[in-house]
Amino acid sequence: MPGQLTTSQQAHVLISALPYIQKYTGKVVVVKYGGNAMINPELKKAVMTDIVLLSLIGVRVVLVHGGGPEITETLKAMGKESRFVNGLRYTDAETAEVVQMVLAGKINKDLVSLISQSGGKALGFCGLDAGMIKCKKLDNGTDLGFVGDITHVDPTPLANAIYNRYIPVVATVGTDDEGQVYNINADTAAAEIAAALSAENLIELTDIRGLMRDVNDPDSLIHEVSLSELPGLIEQGVISGGMIPKVQSCVSALENGVKKAVMIDGRIEHSILIEMFSDEGIGTLFTK
Amino acid sequence: MPGQLTTSQQAHVLISALPYIQKYTGKVVVVKYGGNAMINPELKKAVMTDIVLLSLIGVRVVLVHGGGPEITETLKAMGKESRFVNGLRYTDAETAEVVQMVLAGKINKDLVSLISQSGGKALGFCGLDAGMIKCKKLDNGTDLGFVGDITHVDPTPLANAIYNRYIPVVATVGTDDEGQVYNINADTAAAEIAAALSAENLIELTDIRGLMRDVNDPDSLIHEVSLSELPGLIEQGVISGGMIPKVQSCVSALENGVKKAVMIDGRIEHSILIEMFSDEGIGTLFTK
Amino acid sequence: MPGQLTTSQQAHVLISALPYIQKYTGKVVVVKYGGNAMINPELKKAVMTDIVLLSLIGVRVVLVHGGGPEITETLKAMGKESRFVNGLRYTDAETAEVVQMVLAGKINKDLVSLISQSGGKALGFCGLDAGMIKCKKLDNGTDLGFVGDITHVDPTPLANAIYNRYIPVVATVGTDDEGQVYNINADTAAAEIAAALSAENLIELTDIRGLMRDVNDPDSLIHEVSLSELPGLIEQGVISGGMIPKVQSCVSALENGVKKAVMIDGRIEHSILIEMFSDEGIGTLFTK
Amino acid sequence: MPGQLTTSQQAHVLISALPYIQKYTGKVVVVKYGGNAMINPELKKAVMTDIVLLSLIGVRVVLVHGGGPEITETLKAMGKESRFVNGLRYTDAETAEVVQMVLAGKINKDLVSLISQSGGKALGFCGLDAGMIKCKKLDNGTDLGFVGDITHVDPTPLANAIYNRYIPVVATVGTDDEGQVYNINADTAAAEIAAALSAENLIELTDIRGLMRDVNDPDSLIHEVSLSELPGLIEQGVISGGMIPKVQSCVSALENGVKKAVMIDGRIEHSILIEMFSDEGIGTLFTK
Amino acid sequence: MPGQLTTSQQAHVLISALPYIQKYTGKVVVVKYGGNAMINPELKKAVMTDIVLLSLIGVRVVLVHGGGPEITETLKAMGKESRFVNGLRYTDAETAEVVQMVLAGKINKDLVSLISQSGGKALGFCGLDAGMIKCKKLDNGTDLGFVGDITHVDPTPLANAIYNRYIPVVATVGTDDEGQVYNINADTAAAEIAAALSAENLIELTDIRGLMRDVNDPDSLIHEVSLSELPGLIEQGVISGGMIPKVQSCVSALENGVKKAVMIDGRIEHSILIEMFSDEGIGTLFTK
Amino acid sequence: MPGQLTTSQQAHVLISALPYIQKYTGKVVVVKYGGNAMINPELKKAVMTDIVLLSLIGVRVVLVHGGGPEITETLKAMGKESRFVNGLRYTDAETAEVVQMVLAGKINKDLVSLISQSGGKALGFCGLDAGMIKCKKLDNGTDLGFVGDITHVDPTPLANAIYNRYIPVVATVGTDDEGQVYNINADTAAAEIAAALSAENLIELTDIRGLMRDVNDPDSLIHEVSLSELPGLIEQGVISGGMIPKVQSCVSALENGVKKAVMIDGRIEHSILIEMFSDEGIGTLFTK
Repeated sequence: MPGQLTTSQQAHVLISALPYIQKYTGKVVVVKYGGNAMINPELKKAVMTDIVLLSLIGVRVVLVHGGGPEITETLKAMGKESRFVNGLRYTDAETAEVVQMVLAGKINKDLVSLISQSGGKALGFCGLDAGMIKCKKLDNGTDLGFVGDITHVDPTPLANAIYNRYIPVVATVGTDDEGQVYNINADTAAAEIAAALSAENLIELTDIRGLMRDVNDPDSLIHEVSLSELPGLIEQGVISGGMIPKVQSCVSALENGVKKAVMIDGRIEHSILIEMFSDEGIGTLFTK
Repeated sequence: MPGQLTTSQQAHVLISALPYIQKYTGKVVVVKYGGNAMINPELKKAVMTDIVLLSLIGVRVVLVHGGGPEITETLKAMGKESRFVNGLRYTDAETAEVVQMVLAGKINKDLVSLISQSGGKALGFCGLDAGMIKCKKLDNGTDLGFVGDITHVDPTPLANAIYNRYIPVVATVGTDDEGQVYNINADTAAAEIAAALSAENLIELTDIRGLMRDVNDPDSLIHEVSLSELPGLIEQGVISGGMIPKVQSCVSALENGVKKAVMIDGRIEHSILIEMFSDEGIGTLFTK
Repeated sequence: MPGQLTTSQQAHVLISALPYIQKYTGKVVVVKYGGNAMINPELKKAVMTDIVLLSLIGVRVVLVHGGGPEITETLKAMGKESRFVNGLRYTDAETAEVVQMVLAGKINKDLVSLISQSGGKALGFCGLDAGMIKCKKLDNGTDLGFVGDITHVDPTPLANAIYNRYIPVVATVGTDDEGQVYNINADTAAAEIAAALSAENLIELTDIRGLMRDVNDPDSLIHEVSLSELPGLIEQGVISGGMIPKVQSCVSALENGVKKAVMIDGRIEHSILIEMFSDEGIGTLFTK
Repeated sequence: MPGQLTTSQQAHVLISALPYIQKYTGKVVVVKYGGNAMINPELKKAVMTDIVLLSLIGVRVVLVHGGGPEITETLKAMGKESRFVNGLRYTDAETAEVVQMVLAGKINKDLVSLISQSGGKALGFCGLDAGMIKCKKLDNGTDLGFVGDITHVDPTPLANAIYNRYIPVVATVGTDDEGQVYNINADTAAAEIAAALSAENLIELTDIRGLMRDVNDPDSLIHEVSLSELPGLIEQGVISGGMIPKVQSCVSALENGVKKAVMIDGRIEHSILIEMFSDEGIGTLFTK
Repeated sequence: MPGQLTTSQQAHVLISALPYIQKYTGKVVVVKYGGNAMINPELKKAVMTDIVLLSLIGVRVVLVHGGGPEITETLKAMGKESRFVNGLRYTDAETAEVVQMVLAGKINKDLVSLISQSGGKALGFCGLDAGMIKCKKLDNGTDLGFVGDITHVDPTPLANAIYNRYIPVVATVGTDDEGQVYNINADTAAAEIAAALSAENLIELTDIRGLMRDVNDPDSLIHEVSLSELPGLIEQGVISGGMIPKVQSCVSALENGVKKAVMIDGRIEHSILIEMFSDEGIGTLFTK
Repeated sequence: MPGQLTTSQQAHVLISALPYIQKYTGKVVVVKYGGNAMINPELKKAVMTDIVLLSLIGVRVVLVHGGGPEITETLKAMGKESRFVNGLRYTDAETAEVVQMVLAGKINKDLVSLISQSGGKALGFCGLDAGMIKCKKLDNGTDLGFVGDITHVDPTPLANAIYNRYIPVVATVGTDDEGQVYNINADTAAAEIAAALSAENLIELTDIRGLMRDVNDPDSLIHEVSLSELPGLIEQGVISGGMIPKVQSCVSALENGVKKAVMIDGRIEHSILIEMFSDEGIGTLFTK
């Protein structure tokens, strides 16, 4: 136990965790991993430790990740310019291959390995495994190339892994029936996977504190918001820009059977534990 | 989480518990409960909370208890004098009945109920259930009446309870093939039950800090002792009087397959957690 | 086999039992045990043997018991007067403790032990185990202290015991969420347990032959009565006084999914077997 | 229950059966069925009832049968003379076919049907099913045609049937790897099946009272005999002629792991029940 | 592999079977076996091999058979004339016994043995086993004696056999509650068994090519026909005489949950394989 | 089925496969995939189809692959020169990362996807998953950087995948306890995995016909060779150069419990099927 606290104080901390453990044991929690928490090595290590701890006390964690920066970096190393349309990556066939390679081969297996280092046992998956994530071309008016719109998630391989007490780590690439690979938005994928697994909780790690009524006022964090309040918040501009798709993922998860969806600040060390082991939580909770 | 610590500090405490959780998850730990920890209501509550927490993180705790003071009290209320021979209770047939009634009906079910209050699920047992603890009359040169010497422990009902995720609480009365009830020493019973369940750990809650080289010197606590060192310690008088049977229970447990036996100070709140979740422990560890 | 019959006659008796065995094998039968059958040692032994035999041929017997006389006796030995209001025991906090101790610690474990003596394997339970029988204060216009009105029965621990081929024996004390112990009417408890286990049959052992049209005419036993006939019988005074709550338990069991409820004469040796292994039965059968 | 006994007497008979039920429940008992018990319709019915009763109280009965008289009869109806060599049927290819047809198609399925009539559920097998009983040509110095010497018994289909709570009925024809059918001695087959199933008990139904020291003195029945005494009894002529192969089957069963083998008088109604439910038994018990 | 093809060609054949294996693996297919395929030894051998192959690649085949010619032959050998009413066998009590003996004892076990010879593991059943096929007297205006009209099929014994990876072979005799044996039409029995097992496919082996618009024109084979087209075909005389009951069996199977029913030419070697492993099939497919 | 053969001929081919299916069903077969079969698209497709077919008929195939050419290509695209020492790739830290990315992210998932296209269900693994393949630095006298020497294979994730009827595809990178990634020789890895899974058969796809006594004489193929003959063949130069490590993998597999190891010509379409479904096989069989 940490040196500065007496063992008795430490015991009290453990005991205070009891009701939260009771609440989550045996439940599926899907963590969408991204942002700074995926770049800063200390934060990265803290997330892995949180996940191993949760797994040990009986929470069935599934880690879902994308990895934009490393894709850009690898494309660059290979002499290929990243091209963006309205801020979204245009994914030509060659890029799709690199996306698959970087997400499923590099980031995914690195995370699996980090979890091993922290004492857990993880298995790496991507949407190609057993045709687990099926997509069609995303049709939102703009041609983004092979960016996928999820049509079906088969959770069986993840459920098997959970049943055998492994922590599944999922890279967000998908496929269609002809075997074409698609780049998929990781927020959306996490929400779909959470729904397919009837998860208790979807936790999105972001680089903001949560929904803020006033971005400049740290006290204006919205602790909890119901689906019916969202249109108003969009209208008021509280939810805007890059926040919109993240909020939509939370909404979609809740509408498809996930009990809770929460957006937390991945820049705070152990934010997952703090969120799950305190009454007030640390970010913005979306409820039906 | 406790108010005086930041949530971040609390998260660090939880994370620091990780290696200890890894060590004990899925293992059977038998706790011999007695002394002040069974009388003082705050300590009592703390022990129950420790047990529920351990149970939630996957430790398979079995609580074994006697209850001398309440037996004496009930006998007195019924106008029956307690009689002691060499400091041990003489158990005539009528006393044996009262022992059964108080241990299995009062103390046992009160503990079961306290565990419920702390959020756990316990089942109360005594040695009569399914003929689980078989005894013969103890023959140590002094006639103590119906004081039992354990001849066999059938751990099946406890193993079933554990398998179904209940916390078994065991009152230490036994029976012979003719149905006579016996009072049994709770230290011995705990050791035999630990052996029958191939427990990882036997924890004896006592009213001392552990084995002390010099009772007046708090720094003289012996943190670890191997079986081969015990005869020397008895000769030196470090182990004497009421300590001898307690030490013998630890020895017997180790010799019958239990991995670790430890004697801790039940007067310290959450001593079970502190023992199990720190490297140094809190009392005296007996090793082979 | 009994000496006075030829082995051939005995074989014929066994063979004649075949259709009844076929009828009950694998079914749950809840026996409410009480009255003379619980006081007279020969009757007691006969009931235990009946239960072990039923258990061996595949019937899943659950024994539910109270124990008024022994509670009174123990209270008296402890210098505490039993106080009755309208013929019902007033249960103050101290009395509730004694009720728990006597029912769960003495009578319950004695029955478990007697079943062992007859070759069966029993496990003793009370409503505190795993918070199995939840109560609130009974509100019938008279203050009876801690007399409980059952709000919920969780049959899981009993079902686990049955699955593992043990005979569950249940002492009728219950608890509320704060851990207060309640004395519960054993007839009511047996009916609720039978309903929670979807029992085939609830057998009430009483000290009368059954419902009699004329108490003085042994030939006036009512062999079978349907729920619709009961109001008439109450009006005629055939059902009155202490019979009313017993009849109500049978009614409640039938209304909550138990197939058959029967009231038999516990003063007749082996009345349970005779009831279950003959077409005509031995007491009064309540049917929907 | 039978009219001439009071229900109380009948209950006592049932209770007296308790220790025997305890002894056999869950055990495999192989009954070799033959002789008068297979011809006389009343005896036949009594055997079926015994078997259904045993099955209901948890005994795992396997019925093994031959059927010489019906084979002879069918051969005769088909205009084929039965030919005997040293008292044993000479089995040419055509006869082997008739043996298979009569044993597996007529007698076997008739027994299955009779068990249904008595309330049991039976499945009929012969040694051809799943190649269960493998044979080679018997080589005892005399050419008997296709009379088989068992080389292997695969008990899996019978064990599956038992596991699914059916009563297996086995017709004693076997096969070799080329598909040739063999007539097999039913005593030998029963002993081999009992060994393959690690049966508790092999019961041979015969037309004699058991081994008699003096055939004319009914009091000279040998109640129990150990393997070491058999050579002496053969020398003395107590065991001779047709008895020798029957005794040899018992010996072989005992030597291959069966606990008890007993030869009883099938001419006595319910002789199986009387044998199993009394201390003294009814015939001759062979022990190691 | 066959000598005249190169190993490469053979590999291509195997590969071309892949989609058909994918289609049928894990599915129940009931084969009604009869006609020339049951008489000609080469065809017989080919059917058995087809069935073993299907079983190995995971198809759950159930073989259902009658056996008219052998019944006639055995009756004749026993000096009993076969009597026919409107072309249907009149089954008196004695004949019913012979039918049972020949179907369940001879033909059934011969088929079981042939499957063993081809490397499969089969278990023989008839409708008497576990009272599996219950009948009443067929009432179609003509007295045919003990010809049965199926009232209930209990598929449990067949499902158990399938689960344990045996190939069930079923002889079509049934029974009523009194144990009377009935001769049953094998087409009807196969259809009822297929329905009770929720089979994917019912395959009827016949001695015709299928439904022919013009019996003399081999090119007029109807490859597929829906239930709604049948009345027209009957009216046109395309379906007539002995075809009508066969077609009715297919209709009944489809109406009771079987997915496909197909009538194929049993005179063509490996017609079952050819039907199942080609798109066009070989006979007439009945669809809803 | 292929058009040029009659359906009857095709059925004969299927039937001729029966004994080979019987031989391999339920057995684990590890295929080391590499060489031309991994480059030529037609061969690639043929291998995938072979594997799906085997999987469908109950063979438990595990596909193990490396991927030298694509590593070189990707390194080149990233402007990094491949460096070879004695013909073996020197793997610095950066190269190890690229190896992981290409093998586990590109080739592995491409194969998984190709198997999906052929109708199978595959899951992709690498040695990092659950710490499945543990390595230390290879010490063979030459510094090759992070080239791994396998110290332990945990087959559990592969066994789970097989149990759930997925086809595991394994990329040959490993890890040490500190999380360093190693490049591993795929032949060695396949042999170790085959041993850890107690495989029936290890099939190495190579770019030669097998062991040839005279490379220029196609008739000099050695069909079968025992371990004891190998030293002689090395001495004669029949086994030399790049063949030596491949042969050593086969030897090591056989010595660690694999039943058969065979080296076949991956340049022949469907060589896996031809090897497994013919008596003579297609390459060189190594036997103990």
